[in-house]
Amino acid sequence: MAQKYTTREEDYSKWYNELVGRADLAEHSDVKGCMVIKPYGFAIWEKMKDVLDQKFKETGHSNAYFPIFIPKRLFEAEEKNAEGFAKECAVVTHYRLKTDPDNKGKLMVDPEAKLEEELIVRPTSEAIIWNTYKKWIQSYRDLPILINQWANVVRWEMRTRIFLRTAEFLWQEGHTAHATREEAIEETEKMCDVYAEFAENYMAMPVIKGLKTESERFAGADETYCIEAMMQDGKALQAGTSHFLGQNFAKAFDVKFSSKEGSLDYVWATSWGVSTRLMGALIMTHSDDEGLVLPPKLAPIQVVAVPIYRSEEELSAISEKFDFVRKELAARGISFKFDDDDNRRPGWKFAEYEAKGVPVRLAMGARDLENGKIEVVRRDTKEKVQIDFDQVIEHIVFLMDDIQNSLLERAKIFRTENMHKVDSYEEFKTRLEAEGGFFLAHWDGTAETEEKIKEETKATIRCIPLDQEPEEGVCMYSGKPSKGRVIFAKAY
Amino acid sequence: MAQKYTTREEDYSKWYNELVGRADLAEHSDVKGCMVIKPYGFAIWEKMKDVLDQKFKETGHSNAYFPIFIPKRLFEAEEKNAEGFAKECAVVTHYRLKTDPDNKGKLMVDPEAKLEEELIVRPTSEAIIWNTYKKWIQSYRDLPILINQWANVVRWEMRTRIFLRTAEFLWQEGHTAHATREEAIEETEKMCDVYAEFAENYMAMPVIKGLKTESERFAGADETYCIEAMMQDGKALQAGTSHFLGQNFAKAFDVKFSSKEGSLDYVWATSWGVSTRLMGALIMTHSDDEGLVLPPKLAPIQVVAVPIYRSEEELSAISEKFDFVRKELAARGISFKFDDDDNRRPGWKFAEYEAKGVPVRLAMGARDLENGKIEVVRRDTKEKVQIDFDQVIEHIVFLMDDIQNSLLERAKIFRTENMHKVDSYEEFKTRLEAEGGFFLAHWDGTAETEEKIKEETKATIRCIPLDQEPEEGVCMYSGKPSKGRVIFAKAY
Repeated sequence: MAQKYTTREEDYSKWYNELVGRADLAEHSDVKGCMVIKPYGFAIWEKMKDVLDQKFKETGHSNAYFPIFIPKRLFEAEEKNAEGFAKECAVVTHYRLKTDPDNKGKLMVDPEAKLEEELIVRPTSEAIIWNTYKKWIQSYRDLPILINQWANVVRWEMRTRIFLRTAEFLWQEGHTAHATREEAIEETEKMCDVYAEFAENYMAMPVIKGLKTESERFAGADETYCIEAMMQDGKALQAGTSHFLGQNFAKAFDVKFSSKEGSLDYVWATSWGVSTRLMGALIMTHSDDEGLVLPPKLAPIQVVAVPIYRSEEELSAISEKFDFVRKELAARGISFKFDDDDNRRPGWKFAEYEAKGVPVRLAMGARDLENGKIEVVRRDTKEKVQIDFDQVIEHIVFLMDDIQNSLLERAKIFRTENMHKVDSYEEFKTRLEAEGGFFLAHWDGTAETEEKIKEETKATIRCIPLDQEPEEGVCMYSGKPSKGRVIFAKAY
Repeated sequence: MAQKYTTREEDYSKWYNELVGRADLAEHSDVKGCMVIKPYGFAIWEKMKDVLDQKFKETGHSNAYFPIFIPKRLFEAEEKNAEGFAKECAVVTHYRLKTDPDNKGKLMVDPEAKLEEELIVRPTSEAIIWNTYKKWIQSYRDLPILINQWANVVRWEMRTRIFLRTAEFLWQEGHTAHATREEAIEETEKMCDVYAEFAENYMAMPVIKGLKTESERFAGADETYCIEAMMQDGKALQAGTSHFLGQNFAKAFDVKFSSKEGSLDYVWATSWGVSTRLMGALIMTHSDDEGLVLPPKLAPIQVVAVPIYRSEEELSAISEKFDFVRKELAARGISFKFDDDDNRRPGWKFAEYEAKGVPVRLAMGARDLENGKIEVVRRDTKEKVQIDFDQVIEHIVFLMDDIQNSLLERAKIFRTENMHKVDSYEEFKTRLEAEGGFFLAHWDGTAETEEKIKEETKATIRCIPLDQEPEEGVCMYSGKPSKGRVIFAKAY
């Protein structure tokens, strides 16, 4: 690894971009704003997807699939939602190409194949789904509908960054329909909890559950629940959202049901989603200057083994030992890679697997073999130990848990250290610039104040935390009364 | 089930459309040509996907993800491929909507947000992928690349049918890069084998492996391998294809590698795919006039239990018995549903699960309880038996295998009965109309003859079967010499 990489200290943003490349996660494509997710990056996403999918099913949801295109007339039905996404829509206007008569071998859009009605590439699917639910819902017996879909969506972003903000991204979107307001709110909260639990227990990323302010809400929602995570540079990243949509979409698409009592009511709705953005959150929560750091539960390769040898005999004897390790780990569901590639030196491999965030690295040479020892290095702390070979399996099993837990603990401590209570706007501004992090401050509840603070400091209200004691106070900006603190931070 | 459904005998095509609805698999959306895959249909697709994904991984492939959009200039690079798909492309020309000044609450395409270069919604991804591989491949050490992606694709079809031909469909597309022609051909054949093995062992659908003729080949391929299945109406359905792409895409995108010996060569390519079309194949291979018939290995619910009771006490006693069944089946990995919905009568439930193709149905009433008996009905033959309760688990385990095998056997017999060797064109035409099925006939190898037969009879050459003895003969149409028989049939 002759190449010199940028450190987090030097330039966090550049460090991130380089890391995405050096860990072989993804790259920019030649399509403006769209990324290619490479096999190693996709394997991490697949792990996330599998866990989430299981959690959705355990909470009663089924997967389905709805069209990628939304006819303009459906798209504009829920006005707030349409307005919110109109400025970033990819629009299909034609359905055919033809040979360009003026350019040999080139094609042109066939002007005769213009669509009567333009199609929007879905930026989110409420419109097409509620237009479908209309046909599925007549009575309370048809409710609830609990559906999720894994899909690609397109939001035309001008300034893109891999995983964090791309024109096309992969996500899941849950869309549920309920007979009562209470049941829909319960669902909204439940899915916010599912996301928080996933973030903490699998991504080892502590999150704050909260409500968005009106100006930060999903376009078309009555209430947006979110999970907010703190990145290593102190900035916030919205990692998942769960929306209580009220009856807004039911009204826009005229979806009514006859209740048990015989009345005809509009249906209540929720939607909730997480996306490949979680990859960015995962990277920026744990990684270091040597590369990616992965929690074991999401690592495509959990243990890698590198033989150090000078002869075929040595390699063969070491391979035999690692073969034992492979079998024992397989029986315990721990993924293992033995890298005996002869074209690369051990040092190169060490750096490579460090960059890729493999949680545990094993190495064994001729002397280890003689002494019945093995070298074990954990990626999170880089701690290196020489242990008896006959203890290695037990030690790896311990490390899987210990690394997972330590990463969460470390992230929690970091967050605590960078969470500040402030009461004066001056202090807020100074510390925001000097230290960054999350600021718990009183706010008067108006969009006006929120907007002014954003203009002056670039910090936004990330959420109104759900778990907090009520506390009377005065808005740090306007001095008007406030009933509780909210979280201000700069955000991705 | 008061509704009267069309039988296969009456109108096979109408029967199919009705079945898709009554088994709750999918429906047409309000987006022209696009379908909504409903939860039950999607659950079957997920099962197929899981098995295939595992087989791809076992054969060394990794998943990745490439952009949904292909800039026109990349799309047209491989001329034959571009020409093949140009007539059915959805084209994105704008990236923003704006408020329509003449229509309150309506949106219009913003003429100022016209893309400099149009984007094609991928109908297949060779172009964008080979444009990416160019950056990944320098030396033989970078080869092979063995990547698959699960994705949605769009081909603008004028006449659509759910699962069989839709504007948007879901599929997987494998794209591999190799150093030698031999290795690429080996990969092409291997993946055709994987598809055939999946079709037979999971879908219980026998297939014929073969080569496409030049006129039926994938646009841009040097050779297309396929698996062809026979539907119950005697028509053929192409269930999967595996393409040897030669160096066509490497040349179009200038992808060269330095070989071990130091020469600079173009890379060899393959691509292969199956799609939600398999759902149509599955339906039309096994189902009957009562609804869907599913092979146990792909059934989302493998066993359903219906209690027949007149009192809470009876229900409770029967539930206890079924609870035992649930646990025993769970331990054996067999999925089970207990339907004690009080709003529906047993007869309604029987018809419902028959329509949905659940392989085994259990029922138990008060008298069964008394006698230690249980009713077991298998979906494929509708055979109903009364057995001792203490034999039920063993019997279900037997049925899982037996139904799976019987369905394949039945489909094989049907295919044999409807596979005809013909030597005269008159006989071919007469029997094609009267009986349908597959016709093994001699063909002179010219596109001209192929085209004429198609014009006159609507039958096409489905494939040149791989497994057949060489046999000299004369073309049934032209009388010119032929070296072997090919399969003619009408096709979906």
